[in-house]
Amino acid sequence: MAHIRRLLLKCQTVPISTIQRMTANNVDQFREISTSREVWATTSQDEFTSSPVPVAEVKRYATDCMVSLGVKTDHASALADVLVAADYRGHYSHGLNRLEMYVQDISTKICDGNAIPTIEKDKYSTALVNGQNSLGPVVGNFCMNLAIEKAKKFGVGWVTANNSNHYGIAGWYSIMAANQGLMGLSFTSTSPLVAPSRAKKAALGTNPITLAAPALNGDQFVLDMATCTVAVGKIELQRRKGLPIPEGWAIDNDGKITTSADVAMKGCLMPLGGAEQTSGYKGYGLAALVEIFCGISAGATYGPNIRRWMDTKRKANLGQCFIAIDPECFAPGFETRMSDLMSYLRHMEPADPSKPVIVAGDPERAHMALVDSEGGIRYHVNQISASASLAQKLNVNQMEHIA
Amino acid sequence: MAHIRRLLLKCQTVPISTIQRMTANNVDQFREISTSREVWATTSQDEFTSSPVPVAEVKRYATDCMVSLGVKTDHASALADVLVAADYRGHYSHGLNRLEMYVQDISTKICDGNAIPTIEKDKYSTALVNGQNSLGPVVGNFCMNLAIEKAKKFGVGWVTANNSNHYGIAGWYSIMAANQGLMGLSFTSTSPLVAPSRAKKAALGTNPITLAAPALNGDQFVLDMATCTVAVGKIELQRRKGLPIPEGWAIDNDGKITTSADVAMKGCLMPLGGAEQTSGYKGYGLAALVEIFCGISAGATYGPNIRRWMDTKRKANLGQCFIAIDPECFAPGFETRMSDLMSYLRHMEPADPSKPVIVAGDPERAHMALVDSEGGIRYHVNQISASASLAQKLNVNQMEHIA
Repeated sequence: MAHIRRLLLKCQTVPISTIQRMTANNVDQFREISTSREVWATTSQDEFTSSPVPVAEVKRYATDCMVSLGVKTDHASALADVLVAADYRGHYSHGLNRLEMYVQDISTKICDGNAIPTIEKDKYSTALVNGQNSLGPVVGNFCMNLAIEKAKKFGVGWVTANNSNHYGIAGWYSIMAANQGLMGLSFTSTSPLVAPSRAKKAALGTNPITLAAPALNGDQFVLDMATCTVAVGKIELQRRKGLPIPEGWAIDNDGKITTSADVAMKGCLMPLGGAEQTSGYKGYGLAALVEIFCGISAGATYGPNIRRWMDTKRKANLGQCFIAIDPECFAPGFETRMSDLMSYLRHMEPADPSKPVIVAGDPERAHMALVDSEGGIRYHVNQISASASLAQKLNVNQMEHIA
Repeated sequence: MAHIRRLLLKCQTVPISTIQRMTANNVDQFREISTSREVWATTSQDEFTSSPVPVAEVKRYATDCMVSLGVKTDHASALADVLVAADYRGHYSHGLNRLEMYVQDISTKICDGNAIPTIEKDKYSTALVNGQNSLGPVVGNFCMNLAIEKAKKFGVGWVTANNSNHYGIAGWYSIMAANQGLMGLSFTSTSPLVAPSRAKKAALGTNPITLAAPALNGDQFVLDMATCTVAVGKIELQRRKGLPIPEGWAIDNDGKITTSADVAMKGCLMPLGGAEQTSGYKGYGLAALVEIFCGISAGATYGPNIRRWMDTKRKANLGQCFIAIDPECFAPGFETRMSDLMSYLRHMEPADPSKPVIVAGDPERAHMALVDSEGGIRYHVNQISASASLAQKLNVNQMEHIA
């Protein structure tokens, strides 16, 4: 729970002005941003949500599931940390919702839950790590810790990994660096779901980019974004509601922009920016940047060669990239300037008075504050029943809710 | 001309299949992407374009202008190189079109054309450079050369500069690294023109991101993008044509999205992604990332503190960031994988058969090939007359066209 407690601490040390801005209506606005990406989005008012589950209990459950499959405790715990952090931060698509995918990867032995990553090449600021097909978070923690060590010694640590697996929310790794006063970045290539500008079919993943940077009093800038316009989950949510999707989210099977959620589910995601006239080729370029930093640099799979989503017939061999930079190597006063800019942005006059201007990381901080105030994480009832079934199947204790 | 020749060489060594794809209609499609961003966009069919001016002659003219103001030849030449490269690559807004701005910066003595940048801090992979208020390209070349040297020694070079000025196209610096077999990145903060998501007013610049990476046979991936949807010039172009602008480009004075080019010119640019429902907050996050790497890291101006566009009442004190990474530090075969991915993307089936799928850098390569085939760069007649006036004012020889 050390990592979670650290996140919690970070949240508690957010300046009071920020916390005040996160009360009442604002929390729900922030929540809307952070959770509307998710199919199983939940608000405390939602009739479909459970009573809260303490974060420690969610972690216990996720760890037990992995241990029941023969994964050693510290590896199971590393995975559980990242999944719980996702739910805690409001990114439900990357939390317990993904546990079954990891269970399947281990059950089918296509991923080796007990393997230890090794350093294949090392040179001052850089390293190439062979993930040895271990769990993504085990590889990710190994690499980011190495990058942090290098940043402290040489100013920058730039570590790429091959033979890795899904590593959870990218922000987990950048925050590791920010928690030590460094700037942290991470990138991972993912299964192809996004069509390059002008193309009919997908060739690139949702390829996230994350940057975390420390400000004063534990405040942090945390950008954690896919390089496509929206995740599949957001389209699925519109479909369930019977609503259309905005232009710029997805294309149909012929490569034409669609506003039908039904059609979109059979088509491809569009890169950030959407159509060519709104500069979708920039999002396409950023997705390619992620491929270059990950699979292409590390000699792992890349672009169209990456295995399909949820495929367990072949090893993932994902490429990932982890960067840490020590701001002390540049001008003194980094955190002061960070706080100054963030404060300026947060106090800008909003176009709609009910929607305050926020900075990257604020929606997640608001969600964590809500979880803390309620004593745990609320899940959609479907998630709760899926977790109960999995517990039964793996013969581990179900999650206990707060009464 | 060494740099230009190198660019030219790069272009000539693009695989023949690519060059073939750049003939006939395709050139104009590529040109549309690369030049439609520009107010003074030009096509060879355009009645408003001049006969070609050889790139060497454009450089001679730009250098003479700066030398006439007392700028030493090598500094004048460094600036001219970057401006000419912009026009040669088809980014007319950043070429001769900008020369008068640099002339004004030097004439008013708000920028010191002869100052030499100094290293303020140095630690293995990192350095903090004081640009000493010299010309942006002088600072940029100094920093990227230092980053390249560090990348070769330590794997990565990460150099930030304060006290810099406008440095031209960001891609110039990333390409410097790619020409030496490295990955190159550069970032610069710019005058505030972009409104953060939800805000009424601008607080961030168009803040470009560039990555250049080498592929086989001199081919290169060159992403060089502003983190807003479009540049001001593109809105100006629509206004001149009396056409509306797409949603996602700009907001009006009250922070509402506008489709009127007139209204947009008095409002603000929107970050890449546009509205919140199409994830404009991601572009906003990327613009903030650029501020963090530039002014905030380097202790220069940042965000709303940056002087207004074309202001010469106070020093620019811009922050910039230059990164070089040696791919040899990771898995062998980097360039082969680069070419494989680029080739796959270029051969994907397009949604519209008349618009082939391309990769970042292709439009610019097509433009350079066109310039080479015509023996020089064609300019809009307004640019030609503006350049003639400036030549007269500074008492230097006007540019000579190919008859």
